[in-house]
Amino acid sequence: MHISILTFDGFNDLDSLVALGMLNRIALLGDTDWRVRIASPTARVTSMNGLTIDAHEDLSQLAKADAVLIGSGMKTREVANTPALMEQLHGIDPTRQLLAAQCSGTYLLGRLGLLGGTPACTDLTSKPWVVESGVDVVPRAFAARGNVATAGGCLASQYLVAWLIARLKDVDAAREVLHYFAPVGEKQEFIDRALAHVLPTLEPAHVAD
Amino acid sequence: MHISILTFDGFNDLDSLVALGMLNRIALLGDTDWRVRIASPTARVTSMNGLTIDAHEDLSQLAKADAVLIGSGMKTREVANTPALMEQLHGIDPTRQLLAAQCSGTYLLGRLGLLGGTPACTDLTSKPWVVESGVDVVPRAFAARGNVATAGGCLASQYLVAWLIARLKDVDAAREVLHYFAPVGEKQEFIDRALAHVLPTLEPAHVAD
Repeated sequence: MHISILTFDGFNDLDSLVALGMLNRIALLGDTDWRVRIASPTARVTSMNGLTIDAHEDLSQLAKADAVLIGSGMKTREVANTPALMEQLHGIDPTRQLLAAQCSGTYLLGRLGLLGGTPACTDLTSKPWVVESGVDVVPRAFAARGNVATAGGCLASQYLVAWLIARLKDVDAAREVLHYFAPVGEKQEFIDRALAHVLPTLEPAHVAD
Repeated sequence: MHISILTFDGFNDLDSLVALGMLNRIALLGDTDWRVRIASPTARVTSMNGLTIDAHEDLSQLAKADAVLIGSGMKTREVANTPALMEQLHGIDPTRQLLAAQCSGTYLLGRLGLLGGTPACTDLTSKPWVVESGVDVVPRAFAARGNVATAGGCLASQYLVAWLIARLKDVDAAREVLHYFAPVGEKQEFIDRALAHVLPTLEPAHVAD
């Protein structure tokens, strides 16, 4: 399983890296087929908080991934207005991949025509221009329909992660990962809060228990 | 204000980088005196999830920081058993700095003799060997006494962040940062949950409202 986390220069650290750490827990638990990768147009990108990271792969890998998570950042509209970048995103396809977008990442999904009028989430700062672009923004932390999910607010990242793991593995794996990252003494309520978002969006086949 | 986030090779991405992103919000909001820095013994470090980042500063800066946050990772015991590394940590001092430790970072605080018998938090995986080292581990997400705070569970990071901002700025600033990062539609309960941990540990002088 190959999950690409699309990360541009000026990226929001939490929106790409909470997902990286949480999703990769499945690999650390022993799934040798599970690969989580930061995908960027350049070999190194620097966050909005001045953190420079090495990307794991370039954008040519996106179309081959089982899931693509679109991170957020300060330059999302710049990306959307750069044809050379947008061309590299045209290979992503919700009929054969899971697509997840965090905060301003929702804007890119909309600009790529991949939301299809479905209600979507974004953060409060991005909301005005995401709405203006024609996306039906709902005032919630998480929304999913079919193979596309969106989240609003950096620390709604865990809801996108839980959805991705529930869809790519199963709900028990999502529960295990949420348990690991949750604050001590608050684990059950943390898991319950995330699954209350995710479970209603799953088909019966994804919910083993 | 200078906050160093101590980050070693094999680091836990969330434990250093959620704090970096959240703490640096104060700088992005316009405080030009607010600097948040990844402090590492080498110029580049790689996380337990295979993310390579550039450090902002080396360990010689720790003693000069206003606050030091000790991150967590897979090599904490190795660090504690490497005198050349531990020597570089001896300059940190809770009589003139705020000290915060996340998960296995609590072990380093204990080994440095900086917990002074105070109850402390860590994650469930680290707990057995943190207890064995003599630390009084409590089954909670957050604990603070005086200038030292500890947190258990990666996503208790926001409680350490709220404490640091409440102490270095004020409670209103902590509230504003929590609001920004909270999931949409869940912001008030998110803020309340964090402040329920932090407020009881503050002196009246830190609580303007």
